[in-house]
Amino acid sequence: MRFTIGDIAAALGATAFGDAELSVAGAAEPASAGPDDLALAMDPKYAEGLSQGRARAAIVWDGADWQALGLEAAIVVPRPRYAMSGLTRLMDPGPEIAPGIHASAVVDPTAEVGEGAAIGPFVVIGPRARIGAGARIASHASIAEDAVIGDHALIHSGVRIGARVRIGARFIAQPGAVVGADGFSFVTPEKSRVEEARHARGQEVGARNAAWTRIHSLGTVEIGDDVEVGANSTIDRGTIRATRVGDRSKLDNLVHLGHNVVVGEDCLLCGQTGIAGSTVIGNRVVLGGQVGVTDNIFIGDDVVAGGGTKILSKTPAGRVILGYPAMKMEQYLEASRNWRRLPRLFEDVRALKNPVSLRDEDD
Amino acid sequence: MRFTIGDIAAALGATAFGDAELSVAGAAEPASAGPDDLALAMDPKYAEGLSQGRARAAIVWDGADWQALGLEAAIVVPRPRYAMSGLTRLMDPGPEIAPGIHASAVVDPTAEVGEGAAIGPFVVIGPRARIGAGARIASHASIAEDAVIGDHALIHSGVRIGARVRIGARFIAQPGAVVGADGFSFVTPEKSRVEEARHARGQEVGARNAAWTRIHSLGTVEIGDDVEVGANSTIDRGTIRATRVGDRSKLDNLVHLGHNVVVGEDCLLCGQTGIAGSTVIGNRVVLGGQVGVTDNIFIGDDVVAGGGTKILSKTPAGRVILGYPAMKMEQYLEASRNWRRLPRLFEDVRALKNPVSLRDEDD
Amino acid sequence: MRFTIGDIAAALGATAFGDAELSVAGAAEPASAGPDDLALAMDPKYAEGLSQGRARAAIVWDGADWQALGLEAAIVVPRPRYAMSGLTRLMDPGPEIAPGIHASAVVDPTAEVGEGAAIGPFVVIGPRARIGAGARIASHASIAEDAVIGDHALIHSGVRIGARVRIGARFIAQPGAVVGADGFSFVTPEKSRVEEARHARGQEVGARNAAWTRIHSLGTVEIGDDVEVGANSTIDRGTIRATRVGDRSKLDNLVHLGHNVVVGEDCLLCGQTGIAGSTVIGNRVVLGGQVGVTDNIFIGDDVVAGGGTKILSKTPAGRVILGYPAMKMEQYLEASRNWRRLPRLFEDVRALKNPVSLRDEDD
Repeated sequence: MRFTIGDIAAALGATAFGDAELSVAGAAEPASAGPDDLALAMDPKYAEGLSQGRARAAIVWDGADWQALGLEAAIVVPRPRYAMSGLTRLMDPGPEIAPGIHASAVVDPTAEVGEGAAIGPFVVIGPRARIGAGARIASHASIAEDAVIGDHALIHSGVRIGARVRIGARFIAQPGAVVGADGFSFVTPEKSRVEEARHARGQEVGARNAAWTRIHSLGTVEIGDDVEVGANSTIDRGTIRATRVGDRSKLDNLVHLGHNVVVGEDCLLCGQTGIAGSTVIGNRVVLGGQVGVTDNIFIGDDVVAGGGTKILSKTPAGRVILGYPAMKMEQYLEASRNWRRLPRLFEDVRALKNPVSLRDEDD
Repeated sequence: MRFTIGDIAAALGATAFGDAELSVAGAAEPASAGPDDLALAMDPKYAEGLSQGRARAAIVWDGADWQALGLEAAIVVPRPRYAMSGLTRLMDPGPEIAPGIHASAVVDPTAEVGEGAAIGPFVVIGPRARIGAGARIASHASIAEDAVIGDHALIHSGVRIGARVRIGARFIAQPGAVVGADGFSFVTPEKSRVEEARHARGQEVGARNAAWTRIHSLGTVEIGDDVEVGANSTIDRGTIRATRVGDRSKLDNLVHLGHNVVVGEDCLLCGQTGIAGSTVIGNRVVLGGQVGVTDNIFIGDDVVAGGGTKILSKTPAGRVILGYPAMKMEQYLEASRNWRRLPRLFEDVRALKNPVSLRDEDD
Repeated sequence: MRFTIGDIAAALGATAFGDAELSVAGAAEPASAGPDDLALAMDPKYAEGLSQGRARAAIVWDGADWQALGLEAAIVVPRPRYAMSGLTRLMDPGPEIAPGIHASAVVDPTAEVGEGAAIGPFVVIGPRARIGAGARIASHASIAEDAVIGDHALIHSGVRIGARVRIGARFIAQPGAVVGADGFSFVTPEKSRVEEARHARGQEVGARNAAWTRIHSLGTVEIGDDVEVGANSTIDRGTIRATRVGDRSKLDNLVHLGHNVVVGEDCLLCGQTGIAGSTVIGNRVVLGGQVGVTDNIFIGDDVVAGGGTKILSKTPAGRVILGYPAMKMEQYLEASRNWRRLPRLFEDVRALKNPVSLRDEDD
């Protein structure tokens, strides 16, 4: 597939300079771009790269003298990072899934598959499931009984959608994602050692756990519109009510949402983050990679947590946090700088306590 | 499916009040319950919810005046959390897997499938594998050669059971779980930099690794009775002996057990926890979410580790721990409170070292 | 399959003593070895185990008196751990995948499958994909359009190889690994709160995110020769260029590589480690379990990071690190020892500030 510079500029709402009819087949970094590539030179630091590569057209930084850079055509964009979204959406061929339902797929006769859907090899769609119009479901995915998936979903290979899960429009699931596994919820006939430890805040506790008895998950998972779930991520169903993910929230790879968790709207949960059961995450929350959030707490709107943060208690809206346990980011960074200075501090205090011996050493 | 209040009370070993013949179709939180739902109002705080919802029957707290709450029937339970196990087991419909072996499944002629088993679409069962009676295996699962799985297993979609793995009765595997991947074990012809670094405890070490050579995993995985493994969790086979999980232990989603690991009985390993190779975990150990345990150590019976704990050394039985590196929970929480006070402490010590300048500032 | 002691010794480049024609069927730990097992007694501490077991042959430590140990045959190796690689490679039967292409597999007519390949049930190979000679692909794996996989690959069940991914020779992918998921890259029309927070280093920032817009991943994943990827690990494709893994690097289970990440040669990335987008990892880097590396930084050659390390900034070559945030290993261990002594230090400083009250208490 080829794209003219004029078409690309139009898609980005940007201005084209030079030969708007020049066409490219893809995008590349300036130094490795060939004559068929659109070079991405959105910063002056790429000027040298442009001269090393062979691009004839580029997206350039505001103010660039594209002709002096040896280009035949150029596009200027005000916010380069945002332009990447339009450009890559235009050029992404998406996965090849043949239209219609592959002969090998097992689609229950009571299931409904929307118009224009593309269902790949070895897909299983269970009884009474409903798949929206224009949905694309790649090989080996399974959609269990009574699940509902909105229009224009893109479900990659090997994704598992559990029974009764309800998902909105334009859902994207990367390979291996699991939506609707059973929650991890076990109870003992008598109060368990863990329950006691929580109250004792770390005091030794004596009782022994009896065998764990399973609490089954009768609830489901409800996912809003425009949600994306990363590769091999897992979302457990709720116990009674549903585990929920709000509109436009995005989960990266290997993310775990426990039972009854509520994630608000417009959140980003980066790779390997985990949210324990019944915790509620506000709107526009951004959790970096490997963040952990304990169970049964609230994380306010607009919280930003740096990579690796372990959130052990309720966090007010707007807080920018880091660390284990989570603190205000600046506070944790200062603390970690201070850790390095502790040996000297102990030394100083020892000297202050023993002024005479200090004087002796100084001799 | 419908359940009478009398039947539910009997299943819970609890007492029914009012119309024991009243039937419900499911359970719900009080405020959102409809007339066909059993409301779960096990705490006085739910009284208001009951008046907002439309439930005619509820499980109520001990001492509740169910008639004054407008109910037609009620069940009183002594330990509400434990009652959830009986109630949800009764009401869980489980996954729909048609009885018998689906026409698309590939079952090796030398494999044995027990009586009453239900094998879903696109399941693969390898040579000489043995599947117990009443087992349910959902779509896309694979059971490799010579694996043995006990009676009444529930294996969800896309689960991978490797060659020669042996699993007891009533096993539950959530979607995407992998039991019997190869261990992660590599060696260099000469002593590697990592081996040196371990001994040098962080001193710079000079030697360079040669290329890593693979140690294959000849061992298998042995899993006891009543074990559950979460979605997309992974358990590696042992090098020579077996990696082991004891009876009644439960693993949450995205948990990793390295080669040769031994997990005792009645353990709970929460989401994203990882145990490195050859470590031995005692009985009744509870590891919170994202806990990490280094290789080749022992964790004693009844240890409880809070979320995110990184256990870098042997831990005695009964310890309640938190932090990185793991400490007694109270000790780590105190340490983290002290981190916040460090800037002031440095200030104080500076002042003590320079009494004159302090006096100047005080003027 | 059986192996003579002479053959095993030859495979290890080691010396056989006693009856070189004696054959064994497998390897075992000394105490549990039967008469058909080769006992692994590479350290004098196993002498007792040998007498408990029934092995007739063993690999013994340098200097062992094998006849006094009651053995009929013995092999002596200089570096036991390294000998394990040769022994286990010899004895590993590997997965049973029947030669040829299973009748149920869906192989696109435009795909090329190399000579001697074994393709299991329900495998899907997409348009124009190229699979090398001698490759083994287990059940339920999918290889998307235009992907290239080198000779002698071993791809376990349920592995997902995305479109246009390029992989070298002798690749091993454990079950459920995903290579070529889309990157996690989102942008807002205006500068987002997260971008601001990065610059403000944790100061409260006021702006709210608008909805996230997706940056599609046009790049692919390029993997060198002799690479192994663990069970349920995920590697995202690059945005424009490729995400890369160098020759001979090994990834454990549940590892996550973000978009544009470059991992050098001869690296080991242990279980549940995650590398955020665009970060570059040098050669011979060893990252322990659950290590996290932030985005857009460089990790120098030969860095070794202990389990759980969170690397938030550029790390020079050769550094041995631990902690959150990462420090030199010895420094973090010292810091954590000091945390425990902080309560006493606060006490001391309080006393120094109030010499009179201290004297009072001493009375």
